[in-house]
Amino acid sequence: MILTNATIATMTAGQPYGLVPEGAVRIENGLVTWVGAGSALPAVHADEEVIDLEGRLLTPGLIDCHTHIVHGGNRAAEFEMRLNGASYEEVARAGGGIVSTVRATREAGEAGLLATALPRVDALLDEGVTTLEIKSGYGLDIETELAMLRTARAIGTVRPVRVKTTFLGAHAVPADYAGRPEAYLDEICLPALEAAHAAGLADAVDGFCEGIAFSPAQIERVFDKARALGIPVKLHAEQLSHLGGTQLAAAFGALSADHVEYADEADAAALAQAGSVAVLLPGAFYTLRETKVPPVAAFRAHKVAMAVATDANPGTSPLTSLLLAMNMACTCFRLTPEEALAGVTVNAARALGLADAGQIAPGLRADLAVWDVGHPAELAYRIGFNPLYKRYFGDAA
Amino acid sequence: MILTNATIATMTAGQPYGLVPEGAVRIENGLVTWVGAGSALPAVHADEEVIDLEGRLLTPGLIDCHTHIVHGGNRAAEFEMRLNGASYEEVARAGGGIVSTVRATREAGEAGLLATALPRVDALLDEGVTTLEIKSGYGLDIETELAMLRTARAIGTVRPVRVKTTFLGAHAVPADYAGRPEAYLDEICLPALEAAHAAGLADAVDGFCEGIAFSPAQIERVFDKARALGIPVKLHAEQLSHLGGTQLAAAFGALSADHVEYADEADAAALAQAGSVAVLLPGAFYTLRETKVPPVAAFRAHKVAMAVATDANPGTSPLTSLLLAMNMACTCFRLTPEEALAGVTVNAARALGLADAGQIAPGLRADLAVWDVGHPAELAYRIGFNPLYKRYFGDAA
Ligand SMILES: [Zn+2]
Ligand SMILES: [Zn+2]
Repeated sequence: MILTNATIATMTAGQPYGLVPEGAVRIENGLVTWVGAGSALPAVHADEEVIDLEGRLLTPGLIDCHTHIVHGGNRAAEFEMRLNGASYEEVARAGGGIVSTVRATREAGEAGLLATALPRVDALLDEGVTTLEIKSGYGLDIETELAMLRTARAIGTVRPVRVKTTFLGAHAVPADYAGRPEAYLDEICLPALEAAHAAGLADAVDGFCEGIAFSPAQIERVFDKARALGIPVKLHAEQLSHLGGTQLAAAFGALSADHVEYADEADAAALAQAGSVAVLLPGAFYTLRETKVPPVAAFRAHKVAMAVATDANPGTSPLTSLLLAMNMACTCFRLTPEEALAGVTVNAARALGLADAGQIAPGLRADLAVWDVGHPAELAYRIGFNPLYKRYFGDAA
Repeated sequence: MILTNATIATMTAGQPYGLVPEGAVRIENGLVTWVGAGSALPAVHADEEVIDLEGRLLTPGLIDCHTHIVHGGNRAAEFEMRLNGASYEEVARAGGGIVSTVRATREAGEAGLLATALPRVDALLDEGVTTLEIKSGYGLDIETELAMLRTARAIGTVRPVRVKTTFLGAHAVPADYAGRPEAYLDEICLPALEAAHAAGLADAVDGFCEGIAFSPAQIERVFDKARALGIPVKLHAEQLSHLGGTQLAAAFGALSADHVEYADEADAAALAQAGSVAVLLPGAFYTLRETKVPPVAAFRAHKVAMAVATDANPGTSPLTSLLLAMNMACTCFRLTPEEALAGVTVNAARALGLADAGQIAPGLRADLAVWDVGHPAELAYRIGFNPLYKRYFGDAA
């Protein structure tokens, strides 16, 4: 199959956006086999099936590389309480905060988790997402952590999307281990990680390194286990304060350090050295009304690849639009539209350790998005508008 | 027709959200004839057609009371230039700014204006919008101002939505009148207003009262003409500085004063006295990265009705999601979810001078939205997610 008459943002090096005007792409067995100017299409393909994209923009399918999209319940009541003036203590007394999501997730059951996640997943797919990372971390007991990861895997079987799972047992200390984080790691988190690995449920291991969660030393214990099991790591680091999580992640050769608002120049250098991606999550920044922006200039100076993701979660980023995350990355963090698109394609693929997606090039998956826009900058420019015309997902194209 | 088994946010006084649990609504000839607890439905209607909403939320159809959704071109290139570091002067030299939208609007032709506006309008309708205000103001010559208003009217004939038109000739001084705003008013704006009125194209008259646009004294000339013609007024006021536009609007008994970030306590009192609505436009606040928030506490104290709108426009708010405007109003301006929903229903109706919409009550239009959510607070809580299940538009329900 050949897609012709497209403006192609290949997101490969060279031109801005890797742009190919009046381009064509040949697809066979779910892979791109050729991409270039339509006029240069080899004559041998001249009699193959052709789809005329009528000048539309063609990009790689989008990749949301950081989500907590599987979870029970929602936090609208807490959102409303806070806006009505309730203090954090009052919200906590009313059962709010992450505790409420943990309870709802434990009570939901796998069928319930799947049913409530799918509309959110569909919102992403409707915007051209073809690969999606999903974390555990609201179970905080062995069985529910595994149930979250099984649900994430199930999403990839009932929807045309590739799911990468991440074990996030070190997300929070559950109430029954309050004040005993080490005991939680020993008795729940590390055994759950072993079990998830044994069941083939953990493509990566993540943690939340923050004063309200786990210290770098505690995260290091989780990363040591991940290393022993041969699983790549990533980390929620430097979101609300500077604890050194980014350096820790870099030392473990992490796929990515995520949030990183409080990261500094030395952290940027460490990420560059390790080849780790900085994953920017403007939805949480926006929702929490933060003012400290990530060190974008330092990331640029050190050539740290920047990805952009939704962080879709019920508390700090109930965001299920990757296009809006792109706009927020530009508006709030001053990324360029090209950086924003790279952030949800080529750099997001890298943040997931994927070499077969995120660009349009021979040999890569034919995960593609076709847009009713004239120029790729429009994808980040518009707010709350979905110009997707068609989505191709590998073999299911 | 009877809709049953709904959680109904009537947005009438009394309960928060005017909530009726397990409610029912009876519709006849495009009007609501009865609303209340399903168990209280008069027996005389027992054999009428019933639609079971299965516990979903029913609200008034949403009303976007401030948009510039009809316009030529887009400003993605300018968005990209700015993020690549271009100064305002460089953008202006490259033909950017409102000048570029005026040029594109003049060149588009009415068919072109309609064709490019419809996808944006459809994005609003897909989120349950049933009434939409549309302004002129990118023509800045008599013929194009009228063309914009005719296009706005045309939208109401090709889509199931009610359109209210607003003449905004006093939006900017066009290049050929640079430095001669009074001449622009005499030769273009006021004659265009008369022509728009004669053609039945102006439901209201608006202006942009700001240092970069028109002074209060200049706006007053436009309002005097509107008063002479019997057309209600509204005003872009106190967005970037405090010039006194809000007091002027109140003195003319305006439907609304819009933006109002720099309004003060005395302005709030004046709006309350005049019965004018404060229309909050968080999309522009977000896009411009403003930090001065509107005086919400003063509006509450003086019981000024607050509406929320998209301000959909190509420069400062390329936003076409009224649900997202609700979230931004909560997140950026600290409105409660109930205030945000009132802002796009009952108070938005009032900002348009409509007594027949914005609430669910006997005698009002059956413009309704059905949502897959458990509680109305969820509408403002989620970001970039559309839970609309079904939309009813009066007779076309
Ligand atoms: Zn996260
Ligand atoms: Zn406006």
